[in-house]
This record gives sequence, C-alpha cells and structure tokens, in this order.
Amino acid sequence: MQTLVIGLGSMGFGAAVSCVRANIQTAGFDVNPDALERFKAEGGQPIHSLNACQNIDCVLIFVVNAAQAESVLFDSNLLAGVNPNALVINCVTLAPSKAVDIANKVQAQGFRYIDAPVSGGAAKALEGRMSIMASGAPDAMADAKPVFDAISEHVFELGDKPGGGSQMKLINQLLAGVHIAAAAEAMNLAASLDMDLHQVIDVISKCAGSSWMFENRAPHIADGDYTPLSSVNIFVKDLGIVTDEASGNDVVTPLSETALALYRQASEAGLGGQDDSAVVKVLAQQSNVTLPGSNT
Amino acid sequence: MQTLVIGLGSMGFGAAVSCVRANIQTAGFDVNPDALERFKAEGGQPIHSLNACQNIDCVLIFVVNAAQAESVLFDSNLLAGVNPNALVINCVTLAPSKAVDIANKVQAQGFRYIDAPVSGGAAKALEGRMSIMASGAPDAMADAKPVFDAISEHVFELGDKPGGGSQMKLINQLLAGVHIAAAAEAMNLAASLDMDLHQVIDVISKCAGSSWMFENRAPHIADGDYTPLSSVNIFVKDLGIVTDEASGNDVVTPLSETALALYRQASEAGLGGQDDSAVVKVLAQQSNVTLPGSNT
Repeated sequence: MQTLVIGLGSMGFGAAVSCVRANIQTAGFDVNPDALERFKAEGGQPIHSLNACQNIDCVLIFVVNAAQAESVLFDSNLLAGVNPNALVINCVTLAPSKAVDIANKVQAQGFRYIDAPVSGGAAKALEGRMSIMASGAPDAMADAKPVFDAISEHVFELGDKPGGGSQMKLINQLLAGVHIAAAAEAMNLAASLDMDLHQVIDVISKCAGSSWMFENRAPHIADGDYTPLSSVNIFVKDLGIVTDEASGNDVVTPLSETALALYRQASEAGLGGQDDSAVVKVLAQQSNVTLPGSNT
Repeated sequence: MQTLVIGLGSMGFGAAVSCVRANIQTAGFDVNPDALERFKAEGGQPIHSLNACQNIDCVLIFVVNAAQAESVLFDSNLLAGVNPNALVINCVTLAPSKAVDIANKVQAQGFRYIDAPVSGGAAKALEGRMSIMASGAPDAMADAKPVFDAISEHVFELGDKPGGGSQMKLINQLLAGVHIAAAAEAMNLAASLDMDLHQVIDVISKCAGSSWMFENRAPHIADGDYTPLSSVNIFVKDLGIVTDEASGNDVVTPLSETALALYRQASEAGLGGQDDSAVVKVLAQQSNVTLPGSNT
C-alpha cells in the first residue's frame, strides 16, 4: 500500500516514520525542506510537490488546520495522482461539520474518507503509539488497519460516518484546553500564597482535583520550563473550533470561552509558540505574581 | 484519648464511627437528633449540648463552614470542658486566612490546633479512608496520629503552621470545582451533537482530556442520576472561598469565577441540594439541549 503523509510536523513526522518502520512504502511531503531531509534520513521517500504524485493508495493528512487540509486536497493536483477508491485519512483537528464537508467532496471524487483526528503528543507519535479517534465506512476502516497499526496504540472506532471522530476530538480538546488553563490558575494562586509548587503537584495528583493535564503540565510551571510540547497557539485554534461549533448550534460553553480568552491574551503577548502552560504567565502578570523562572 | 466529633454529617459521621471502630472513646454532637441516634446505634456516645462536655482531649470539627466552626468554638462553653493542651483538629474547608485566625484564638486559650481539611467523600469517610491535608506543630501532629490513623488512609503533612492544610484544600477545590463544570460543559456539548454519552466517557477517560472529576461525575450526567454525592451548594461555598481569597490578594481566577457563576445559577434554580454535576442542567437549559433523564 503506497502511502503518502502530508505534513511532517511533530505528529505527522512520527506517523510517517512509524509507517516506514512497519515496512509500508511511505512518501512524505512538507513545505519545509528540513522536514523532508529529516524524513529522508529515517528511510522515507521525500516528495517535493503534491502535483507529481503517482499511484497513491493511502493519503494521511497531518497539516495544521482545516484550511490547509482543504488546500492540499482541492487546490493541488494531488487527487489526480491518487488511485481510484484510495483511502484519504484526515488526522487534522477540525470542526465536525467541516469533516463532513470535506468527506463529501472527497467521496464525490471516488475516494474513501476516514475522519481520524489523533492525540498523544510528539513523543508517542514517534514511537507509533498515538491514539486515533476514527470514523468511516467499515471497508475503509478495515483497509486502514495496517497504517493504524503502524502509527497507533489505540484506535477508538466511532461509527461509520465521518464527523464521529472529530466530534470526540472536539470534546477532548474542550476538556484539555480548560484543564490546562485551570492548572495554570491553580498554580498561579498557589504561587501567590508562597506554597511549595512541587508539593502542590505531589498532593493534588493524589486528590480529586487532579487531571491528566494537571499532572502533565503543572510541572512545567513549577520548573519554569516552557519548552513547547504543544503550544499556546494550538489551543487558540482548538478552543476556537469548540466555541465556534458550539455557538453555531446555540450551545453555551462559558468555561471554554474563558479559557480561550486566556490563550488569546497569551498569544497576543508573544507567547503563542511557547508550551500551552505558558497561559499561566497571563494570569501571573495580571496578579503581580512571580513564577519560577521569571525575571520579574 | 477522649475525643469529641462535632458535626455528624456525611464526613463527620464517618470520622466519628471510624474512631469508635478504632476503640477511641468517642463522643459526638450534632444539632440533628437523628444523627445522634444513628451515631448511638453505631456504639458512639451522643451528647446533646456543647455546654456539658468534660475532660475532652481531642475535638474534631466537621461542621459546614467557618461561621459554624467559630460558633461552636467561641459562642458555646465547649472549651471550658476541654482539658488544657488538648487538640483542636479543624476539618472544615475554610479560607487559609480564616484558619490562621481561628488557630490564633484557640492557641491563645492554651489549646493546640491542627488545620486539617479532608476530602474523599462520604463512602470513604465511613470506611475510615478519607484524605487529610494537615498542618500544625509537630507535637500536635504526633498526638493526633491515633485519630488520623482511625479516620484516614492518607495524611498529607503540610508544614508546622495552621493555614498550610487549608491552602492545599483551596487549590484542590479550585480544580475540582472547575473540572466538574468543565465535565458538564463537555457532556452538554456532546449531548447537543447526539453523541453516545457512555461512549464519550469510555473514550475520554483514556485520553488527555480526562480528570478525576470527569471520570467520577460524567456518568451521573449520562445516567441522568443526580443523587447527591456532594452537592451543588458545596461548590457555591468552596469556589466562593477560592474567589474571595484570591481577590483579597489581587489574584485573578477567571475560570473559578465562571464556574462559580454556574453553580450559583444552579442553586438559584433550586438545584442546590442535587449532585454537583447538576450544574449541567443550567447549561442544557441555556442551550435547549435535552439530557438523559430530563422531562423536557
């Protein structure tokens, strides 16, 4: 199965390398030449234009957002080089309604579509251990199995219609984005009280106030280390999708709105490329709190 | 060690019964005669007035809030019946600054004070398995050990000054209160999208969006069962403490403020005595979403 991975960022690179490792014939495309070089060094087959592809059986899309996904699919000659009935597996986080739109357009051209947003972070991606929230027709899901096996340790099968995967990702990102901001709010308050921040993490991790994100991100704040695992700008995007999709259905999401405002303030303050936990710096600045690692 | 437990509600009753089970001489006081009868049936020694106590070595306070704690300590003749150098262990969730105030007044009268808010819920309390966030002088902590052993499975030792325990509880309640509201927001959005709510719980519990509270409370929403484990009004109180303590120190807590507004709306809508996850009903009503178990 000739596979093409489009977008060799942190998640796409891990997926592409995992496919190579599983002996799947894997081409990779990225606009960044350094990413192509890194992929070649791992045994992958770099391609320099989406207009020159041939005989692709499976396209895995790992670009940043819906607009880029639509661009690579519909503004290039990519689909002319893709075999009839090929699989298009879209791993981009996008609105469920957008996933349905894209699926309809892809299927109208004679291809099969799987809505397959992922999670797990760059380290797990590189080990072929991401999680996939997938929905699509049973035959497409069956044919995607070798690729899913190569790149993931969990595949959540969420029905036979595109949109199901993106709905679950939407719910996950709502919670993840609010929980990171809540962890930041808690750590900022703890810092204002001169509490031992590492002790806070030790205790809260054993209590009912804990979350996956608290346990993962609060140490970044206690250590003052904002090297990005996932960036502030990811949540500007993803909580924007949450609040847009919700408000489009007249559904209220006050906590997501509040958290999104914090990520936007962080981004506007020049912190967009830092770790998402850097949202705490907005709170600290507004509260005159000195955090570990800060110079003020 | 003659012990007196004041407040035989869900947590205090569990603590008192656990002390009886550990062969600690345990008296219990509550304004509710039914609670006293239940305690007597478990082998405890009910007392009917705080003004008639004698020879108490250890007072455990499990009333609802700071005002009640101050009332039992300072508006009754309780302390006249307490032995010199006795332990006063205050398990009420209150502002750290208030814990320090009460400790100072108790210590000025020749008693020892431990700031010891608890968590874990009624079921664990009844099994003697609550968690205690404790701070106090080393000799007081050492003398409290038999009681702590009887009622808890975890004691977090948070320094030798009153206030340390209440600070940690404050941070825990901030996170717990926001996480319950976030779980409600996520489940309401999922319901609006006609997602399978039990599948949402299964998947999210394995993903980065999970929290202790999501795993514990989201099933109440999926099942439409709002039998209170802990009530909406508890978070009206506890997030009120969080936001008051924060704003008193000029610290911003936008997520806590947003969540608190939801709990207040739920309470004003007559849901104050329901499970705290009933905060979802406010979101559902504002979004025209029909939840499991609703009649609309």
